[in-house]
Amino acid sequence: MSNALPHVLISEVGPRDGLQSVKATMALPHKLAWVSALHAAGLREIEVGSFVPARLLPQLADTADVVRHALGLPGLTVMALVPNLKGAQAAFDAGVHKITLPVSASEAHSLANVRKTCAQMVDEVRAVVALRNAVAPHIQVEAGVSTAFGCTLQGHVPEAHVLDLAEALAKAGVDDIGLSDTTGMANPAAVRRLFKGLQSAVGEKAGAAHLHNTRGLGLANCLAAFDVGVRTFDSSQAGLGGCPYAPGASGNVVTEDLVFMFEAMGVDTGVDLDKLMTARGALKQGLPDEPLYGMVPDAGLPANFTPHVRPLRKSP
Amino acid sequence: MSNALPHVLISEVGPRDGLQSVKATMALPHKLAWVSALHAAGLREIEVGSFVPARLLPQLADTADVVRHALGLPGLTVMALVPNLKGAQAAFDAGVHKITLPVSASEAHSLANVRKTCAQMVDEVRAVVALRNAVAPHIQVEAGVSTAFGCTLQGHVPEAHVLDLAEALAKAGVDDIGLSDTTGMANPAAVRRLFKGLQSAVGEKAGAAHLHNTRGLGLANCLAAFDVGVRTFDSSQAGLGGCPYAPGASGNVVTEDLVFMFEAMGVDTGVDLDKLMTARGALKQGLPDEPLYGMVPDAGLPANFTPHVRPLRKSP
Repeated sequence: MSNALPHVLISEVGPRDGLQSVKATMALPHKLAWVSALHAAGLREIEVGSFVPARLLPQLADTADVVRHALGLPGLTVMALVPNLKGAQAAFDAGVHKITLPVSASEAHSLANVRKTCAQMVDEVRAVVALRNAVAPHIQVEAGVSTAFGCTLQGHVPEAHVLDLAEALAKAGVDDIGLSDTTGMANPAAVRRLFKGLQSAVGEKAGAAHLHNTRGLGLANCLAAFDVGVRTFDSSQAGLGGCPYAPGASGNVVTEDLVFMFEAMGVDTGVDLDKLMTARGALKQGLPDEPLYGMVPDAGLPANFTPHVRPLRKSP
Repeated sequence: MSNALPHVLISEVGPRDGLQSVKATMALPHKLAWVSALHAAGLREIEVGSFVPARLLPQLADTADVVRHALGLPGLTVMALVPNLKGAQAAFDAGVHKITLPVSASEAHSLANVRKTCAQMVDEVRAVVALRNAVAPHIQVEAGVSTAFGCTLQGHVPEAHVLDLAEALAKAGVDDIGLSDTTGMANPAAVRRLFKGLQSAVGEKAGAAHLHNTRGLGLANCLAAFDVGVRTFDSSQAGLGGCPYAPGASGNVVTEDLVFMFEAMGVDTGVDLDKLMTARGALKQGLPDEPLYGMVPDAGLPANFTPHVRPLRKSP
């Protein structure tokens, strides 16, 4: 890329993280329309679903169909979450460009979530990478370290443990390692410390920031991550899947607010804010009873706002 | 101060900025109880009211009584807003420790708000300083540059104009010059640029950040200001005076959320978060029909949260 402006990649997780967290199931045609609208707004990486058993997450049972559609959208990196080798096989079969594997830094969370220890999850990741190398070497494998900033089950998660886990994942052969504030316990100082630590531990494999807004620090934490060189940020349109401004919420950072912050700072996101607002309409059509959040959508853009939209980038 | 930790001063503006923005009037005994509760939580600077004609702001007509009470609270800097020389005289008579004069960087806003041009306001400030020097040389005079990051009436506010105004105010003899994002149009890059510019322009007189959360960037903007050396932050308990998460809101940064961010980062605010939550009760008693905001109050503190509360500081 040859942008003069600094730039970031906004990785939209709403169609996976958002849809898995609401009770209602969005019908397939609405999912396809929403993903298309997100792409039309300039988003160039979308986590379109998850390859997990349909009995666990019926909302995402049609992920392979969403992937098929998304693969037709030019310049889009089509991403899916997989919890294990079986999910990875299904994702590879569907033809995704990139998978993300959640690996919890908290033993308690890992056992509760996937009934595996951290070490067992690293073994699983190693098996996924071996499969990828054998059958689909072009597919990117990301590991997302969840509960990296603390865990509601376990409490404190030592930073050294997070970094050891990241190193183990790098050695297991993943391409990128992100850090997730699954429980909304991060703060800007911890974000800077841990992402700097991640860069020291795994170098070029240091990846995305997946931050929540549970206690209002979502954007401040994204800014802190940006300051230390993070350039990929997960967020969810309309904060889908849990009020980002309320108790107990899943509370993903709202894509609209995140894009606004960066664009206002002169950091290119490639996203057109007006078209991003339009994409909310597609989401609303598919889930008419879900509340849509977002402070920029509520307040509107400042009258004299000049976004830093660039020509859409070609490569994913 | 001899703190090993970095520290900040949280300047609570709820009793002035909050109360002036709600329709209901808090009865005097409730105001006194609330100010005492804020002080008990460790806040050491409180803007307790405004010396303006009672016909304009009947909610603050009893400011002199609030000042009298607040002067009895040990270690507290008792602050009041004054719009002009007459207000300053009243504030000096009441015995405040510090006054703040709002001076708009937007001509349109200045004319609409105080029917004076920016230059006329600088003259007014000069007269206030002369009075202070003559009758009460121990009283601190702050000028707060409002609409420093943009104006809903005028649109763009040139940064050079803001800095010229700050220099003029420094020459007029004020002790501190703060910058206010009156309209919620700031972003972290602009905050860093303008506060660094302020420091270059007026040196040690560079003062507080008064930032709003209109578009969700309040805490990110505070972090940005902290990063470039700002150490005094205005905020309002419970975001009183307008939903900080809604359209058209006044939207002061919520004191509870701001204190949480800094304490979580290991930055000493001197404020006890539990006692700050208790002070919300005093606010609620005085204004039972007003909504109280705050993401940390809603979500609760993380289970393993260790605040960085220090022994209460002695000097104001």
